[in-house]
Amino acid sequence: MLFALAQINPIVGDLEGNARLVVERSREAASLGADLVVFPELCVTGYPPLDLLENHAFVDDVERTISRIAADVPSRLGVIIGAPVRNPARVGKRLQNVAIVLEDGRETARVVKALLPTYDIFDEYRYFEPGTHRDVVSFRGLRLGLHVCEDMWNNEEQAPYHLYEANPIDELAALGIDVFVNLSASPFAVGKHVLRNRVLSEICTEHGIPFLLVNQVGANTEVLFDGDSRAHAADGTLVACAPSFEEALVLVDVHPAADGGPTTVAAVPAADPSAQARTAVPRDDLADLHDALVMGIRDYVNKTGAFRKTLVGLSGGIDSAVTAALAVAALGPDRVVGVTMPSRFSSSGSVDDSLALARSLGIGFHEIPIGPAVDAFEGMLQPLFAGTPFGVAEENLQARARGVTLMAVSNKFDYLLLTTGNKSELSVGYATLYGDMSGGLAVIADVFKTDVYRLAEHINARHGRSVIPRSTIEKPPSAELRPDQKDTDSLPPYDVLDDILRRYVERQEDLEAIVSETGHDEAFVARILRLVDLSEYKRRQAAPGLRVSSKAFGIGRRLPIVMRRTRNGRPS
Amino acid sequence: MLFALAQINPIVGDLEGNARLVVERSREAASLGADLVVFPELCVTGYPPLDLLENHAFVDDVERTISRIAADVPSRLGVIIGAPVRNPARVGKRLQNVAIVLEDGRETARVVKALLPTYDIFDEYRYFEPGTHRDVVSFRGLRLGLHVCEDMWNNEEQAPYHLYEANPIDELAALGIDVFVNLSASPFAVGKHVLRNRVLSEICTEHGIPFLLVNQVGANTEVLFDGDSRAHAADGTLVACAPSFEEALVLVDVHPAADGGPTTVAAVPAADPSAQARTAVPRDDLADLHDALVMGIRDYVNKTGAFRKTLVGLSGGIDSAVTAALAVAALGPDRVVGVTMPSRFSSSGSVDDSLALARSLGIGFHEIPIGPAVDAFEGMLQPLFAGTPFGVAEENLQARARGVTLMAVSNKFDYLLLTTGNKSELSVGYATLYGDMSGGLAVIADVFKTDVYRLAEHINARHGRSVIPRSTIEKPPSAELRPDQKDTDSLPPYDVLDDILRRYVERQEDLEAIVSETGHDEAFVARILRLVDLSEYKRRQAAPGLRVSSKAFGIGRRLPIVMRRTRNGRPS
Repeated sequence: MLFALAQINPIVGDLEGNARLVVERSREAASLGADLVVFPELCVTGYPPLDLLENHAFVDDVERTISRIAADVPSRLGVIIGAPVRNPARVGKRLQNVAIVLEDGRETARVVKALLPTYDIFDEYRYFEPGTHRDVVSFRGLRLGLHVCEDMWNNEEQAPYHLYEANPIDELAALGIDVFVNLSASPFAVGKHVLRNRVLSEICTEHGIPFLLVNQVGANTEVLFDGDSRAHAADGTLVACAPSFEEALVLVDVHPAADGGPTTVAAVPAADPSAQARTAVPRDDLADLHDALVMGIRDYVNKTGAFRKTLVGLSGGIDSAVTAALAVAALGPDRVVGVTMPSRFSSSGSVDDSLALARSLGIGFHEIPIGPAVDAFEGMLQPLFAGTPFGVAEENLQARARGVTLMAVSNKFDYLLLTTGNKSELSVGYATLYGDMSGGLAVIADVFKTDVYRLAEHINARHGRSVIPRSTIEKPPSAELRPDQKDTDSLPPYDVLDDILRRYVERQEDLEAIVSETGHDEAFVARILRLVDLSEYKRRQAAPGLRVSSKAFGIGRRLPIVMRRTRNGRPS
Repeated sequence: MLFALAQINPIVGDLEGNARLVVERSREAASLGADLVVFPELCVTGYPPLDLLENHAFVDDVERTISRIAADVPSRLGVIIGAPVRNPARVGKRLQNVAIVLEDGRETARVVKALLPTYDIFDEYRYFEPGTHRDVVSFRGLRLGLHVCEDMWNNEEQAPYHLYEANPIDELAALGIDVFVNLSASPFAVGKHVLRNRVLSEICTEHGIPFLLVNQVGANTEVLFDGDSRAHAADGTLVACAPSFEEALVLVDVHPAADGGPTTVAAVPAADPSAQARTAVPRDDLADLHDALVMGIRDYVNKTGAFRKTLVGLSGGIDSAVTAALAVAALGPDRVVGVTMPSRFSSSGSVDDSLALARSLGIGFHEIPIGPAVDAFEGMLQPLFAGTPFGVAEENLQARARGVTLMAVSNKFDYLLLTTGNKSELSVGYATLYGDMSGGLAVIADVFKTDVYRLAEHINARHGRSVIPRSTIEKPPSAELRPDQKDTDSLPPYDVLDDILRRYVERQEDLEAIVSETGHDEAFVARILRLVDLSEYKRRQAAPGLRVSSKAFGIGRRLPIVMRRTRNGRPS
């Protein structure tokens, strides 16, 4: 039986557009001889639909859209889609997250998602009632172990701690199935595909059953999906894998063994040569990071449809250079504009490096010195500020004069201002609200500074030349908001800082653990952790940042602004 | 038996300070002869602790804090506290939300919260595994129906739809109890106390059992708690109620009837005269709104401890006037500074009204004309903008020049900038990011414009004079960003707008329903709903706003920025 794994890129809420994607890909699958085409989790609404699900009219529209899809797909083709539907019970959450099997214009089976991720960026129990029992879905004699995303993750990701009572994988296997079929909206994080590969391989070998997984691809606001749809054989071998960060239709042939042995799964090479290649080519973390961010920019711009170009404030530093290069990779140089805004504290290298970058990338470029605005503000504030020393207020004036300038250009020409702050800065609050934090999308907000350097080298390697100038990469990082300022005046070297931040923010290690594992002075580490806690008010007002790690700032990390951390009689 | 209901105001994360509150109030209760003192839900951590709960060290600290409390409270007193503790099972969420009974220095009973609100601002299933069975807690011969917050809400709030299978109230009643005891962290919304009163009365009359409820008071970032701790008799009558928006210790005498009839509950008048009065004095929605916002400002400033004063940009309009008046009510005139920042488009009345307001409130006042900054930006941008018409970019320049000016004052003097935008503006995006949206706390972000007017009249009535000038109340609202601009140039009159917004944002009515119920033109309503959807990107970067309605923007309303609303072939 020929399965088509349809890795599509839906837009959240775009029921018409998403239905069109489903119907078109179904027709394509049918034309290639497929018996059954499988789409990702919640493909009708796009993932994550968030509180659109609380709107009754939206749910009505979803149900009508399912009927339209059923009517419009080729009648001889089986089609499995994911959608939110009303919970038929009179108790519990109002919706269920389901996989629906369509055949001959009507629904023939429905599987309710059993494990509802409610952690990090996920809020599924906010909307959905879990499915409570497992059934085999029969499709033309084949016994499908159909389930949705998280349902496959109970044994592995949380081990040795089990987050859920139910284990749909084991339960489905015990019912006797020919193949697992998983509809996913499984977000990208660097290295996630390795985990996905391991978990699927383990499931296959444990049960002697092959596994097909269809994942969403694309970016919806801050959440990125790499795709990575897969077919694993009963022995765990990866036999086909969709290309990452793009839509794809992967064909696989599934045959139950006549002798009661394991079902065989074979890739169908003609359908998608790139998918075929992917079983052999290992992925590279830096390339993934690059491609994920590029997809994030591209989808934000194209899915909103509101912006002619993107705009980047170029400081001559590495963050803005990398952001501009990623925007060029996403949209082409004609849709990227750089603006350099020197002040009296800017080194001459800042303008030169910005200009060199703009030339090497081939993007539009403007130089707008901010001196007049800063002078004006200082004059306006002189009656109040007289006699006070130059300090944070004056530093921020410069950053904010730049923010206002960029936003004016953004408003005037419908350019999307890309924010250039990295995760290290955002962690410790080394950024100015309404200044350099201004913008609609924070491209590298989930990338630590040390990784920004790696990304710069990767970008130059891709281009085969230093599109990002060597001087930008090699000079000591500086905000250039006071004379001869260096980041290291306020912060430890980034390799030290990033190691501490990764432990505190991503792994949630506490002070004692970080001190004992790094050997740093306790007061030194405590000061950094305190900076992270105190900067929450800035992050709450930050632009959405593209999520590329397992723990990004934003919707997946929810901390109070007003809080006081004390413990057993001593402040931490 | 003498119960003390301890309505306290904890600070999130402040384990030491919260423990001190518990111990001090326990000693006070003991000195008043109480047998048992009851504290609110999660009083050890403050509510909501959010992702602090994901930090293992924090949970360790909580468990140590519970032991310290047990050791430090008077040994003859029973003490019931709320805290997050580890789930002893090896499956499920790692924590439980529990009520713990302490006696003689040790824990004698523990009740696990069964119903975990996971909607609006609540994310409890993100952290907690629900309790699965109900037990009576015996305390010195009294049978307590001890439970936590949401456990009492299954029958009522969601009727006729039941959100949960379990019904702890009915189950506890069936076990045979003398009195219900509820530990709550039940947020304020205007009118919520009426619902609370009705639900408690109904529970009492249904089961013939009295009800004691202890609620948290105070503000933690955006979430406000009014307190409203209560004792209802078995016939539903309210016999005692703590004052709203402040800490209190309410004493009630609870006596099981000797003849098997209902337990009697009587207020103990000497303990808290204000609580006694509250059973007779009905609350006023406007006064509640006022007091809630005042508490929100006060707690933000006092709990962060980071700000010497608050700062308000005074436009001469009603939003900034009301915000300033609320800040004065919260902190006194000495801790409020107003700044008026006229531009070439400002009417002379704007400065005059701002000055009149500052004088009548007795606050500090500065006038900083923004002309120099706006001229400087226009000059800087002239090479790029030449030949383009005056538009949104130029309007926003003015709003942003004001934002930069205010933030400079804020940074220089450690003043908390209060944002003055109302819910109507925030709904339709009639506000400038990094301009008038700048600030740390959005005081009236959950108050529709029509209610801002009511609040202004209420404030003047409280003062017995027009502290908010009549001209501010009576002039047509204007952003004054272009010549002779009026809000009604871009928006419908606020009574019409607010009615539509209330339906769409708060009640989640859809286009058809709003059109049919209001009689407005469909295209007109559709344009407003579209403005709401499209403005999500602004709200995502908005300052936290004090929540006073059942559906505020912010953490309780989660919508995608990148989305496209289409339905059945036509865009909505």
